[in-house]
Amino acid sequence: MNNYCFGVDLGGTAIKFGIFSEDGECQEKWDIKTRKEDKGRYILQDIANEINKKKQQWKLYDTQVLGIGIGVPGPVSGDGCVFSCVNLGWGKTNVVEGLSKLTGECKIAVGNDANVAALGEMYQGGGVGHQSIIMITLGTGVGGGVVIDGKILAGSVGAAGELGHLHVNDDEEAVCTCGGKGCLEQYASATGIVRVAKSLMQKSKQETMLSKFDKLTAKDIFDCMKKGDDLANQAVDIMCEYLGKALGVAATVVDPEAFVIGGGVSKAGEVLTEKIQKSYEKRVLPVLKKKEFVLAKLGNDAGIYGAANMILSKK
Amino acid sequence: MNNYCFGVDLGGTAIKFGIFSEDGECQEKWDIKTRKEDKGRYILQDIANEINKKKQQWKLYDTQVLGIGIGVPGPVSGDGCVFSCVNLGWGKTNVVEGLSKLTGECKIAVGNDANVAALGEMYQGGGVGHQSIIMITLGTGVGGGVVIDGKILAGSVGAAGELGHLHVNDDEEAVCTCGGKGCLEQYASATGIVRVAKSLMQKSKQETMLSKFDKLTAKDIFDCMKKGDDLANQAVDIMCEYLGKALGVAATVVDPEAFVIGGGVSKAGEVLTEKIQKSYEKRVLPVLKKKEFVLAKLGNDAGIYGAANMILSKK
Repeated sequence: MNNYCFGVDLGGTAIKFGIFSEDGECQEKWDIKTRKEDKGRYILQDIANEINKKKQQWKLYDTQVLGIGIGVPGPVSGDGCVFSCVNLGWGKTNVVEGLSKLTGECKIAVGNDANVAALGEMYQGGGVGHQSIIMITLGTGVGGGVVIDGKILAGSVGAAGELGHLHVNDDEEAVCTCGGKGCLEQYASATGIVRVAKSLMQKSKQETMLSKFDKLTAKDIFDCMKKGDDLANQAVDIMCEYLGKALGVAATVVDPEAFVIGGGVSKAGEVLTEKIQKSYEKRVLPVLKKKEFVLAKLGNDAGIYGAANMILSKK
Repeated sequence: MNNYCFGVDLGGTAIKFGIFSEDGECQEKWDIKTRKEDKGRYILQDIANEINKKKQQWKLYDTQVLGIGIGVPGPVSGDGCVFSCVNLGWGKTNVVEGLSKLTGECKIAVGNDANVAALGEMYQGGGVGHQSIIMITLGTGVGGGVVIDGKILAGSVGAAGELGHLHVNDDEEAVCTCGGKGCLEQYASATGIVRVAKSLMQKSKQETMLSKFDKLTAKDIFDCMKKGDDLANQAVDIMCEYLGKALGVAATVVDPEAFVIGGGVSKAGEVLTEKIQKSYEKRVLPVLKKKEFVLAKLGNDAGIYGAANMILSKK
């Protein structure tokens, strides 16, 4: 009889599910809407219902279910304590106990969603073949995850790998969403690079294709850069300088085998990894220069893959 | 019958030894000169001789020796592979195999000396009570060590925790010993702060007690600061700003419970930890602000204590 596990990616809008075979193959995936009413009190029951239904559909005995891995949008300690999930209305929550009761005393593993996604990319995405990586996710914000010796580095208050708020610029005057000034996210998120480009446009009298756009996006900037627009190129350079600097200091602390670059902005492709790597190599010890820089591969599925791998890699 | 272990701190000038009881108490310590002749080929034999002699003196059976921990001055992988020790003339060296043969098939654990010292400070020095710390050592150079969940974070090429070469200043023009520019060591080592003070003296016309010294040292600068010298105070502020910045980015990556500040320069005392903490708190996420900043306690013995703890904490 074959064994399976579930990977769950709990987000503020949707909950994604995957059922995985023991060798990590995703057999089926689906999602439901996240019910945030009443401080998110129905969420664990909704997750358990979906899993119990799927167990029935697949006619699985409890003993065939190796466990349920779940990524949540908030800080999680190394032993699975969820400190809070502001987006869900959750305060301190014992997901392991709560979900275990509702799913037949199944083994549960919990991690922060960005860390879990990093684990997924390492085992089955861009970081395959490695045991320690730093992943950085360039989306609306900038997220990060650190995996060391095959395991998520959670941190003492669940805040390890918060690379979006790595301080990279002492001269910044604009305030970041976190209240600080000069965070990586202010330059390297989708909104960050637009801010950088607009600031360049204001300061320079240079002609640029970017001025044609009513509502400039990160994608527009990368597209114009590829068409040879100098100002767009400058904006991307600034973004990648800061990214290389941030990954350089991160490597000086944990010395990973590779870096995985993900998130919507990473669709810009290898032009991004090349520029980041160039900036990185300027700022690290010789022994740290030779690192692999790769693009993420799993997209929005990284979360369910990583969640499954929290169960499968611990066997 | 009581059990014991040995802690060895292999340096470029001397090899320090300690024999420890099972509960981590140092029973006796001693040292010998490091024989670096012929590419350091006699070193492991010298270490084994000392340990075997001590076993005889103490009339210990092989079964009473829990193991030998050893810190070496070079990069070491997580599984104990020593990549090189330039100061000793060593290339890639299998210390575990070599030393095990010479000491009666004893359990051997090897780590980088700065990382091993961090482990010692965590288990029995300034970091007691914690399970994850970042230690920074302010001496002739600046070293560092990261301990996560009670274990040394070695890094994929043994270069984790190289905090002296964390890039903190893009505007630096002077070159660091590593070939880079703007490394923490250029401001926060004993020579670094002297360089900072001299540069301030050149630029300003301000009167300062520092101009009285023929050969200015880090200690002179801290002494004059304590006597109210404004320029000395500025130099210490610059040093601590960079230290806080570096520890801030390190915390954003690994989120430790505490920071331990050691090395000769740390004798300046709590004025140092206070200034570092102030700079640190300006640059990190709210969730990371509340960290403990403590002074190291074991001084030059941190290495043998940490080496012993590599054996004792793994039991």
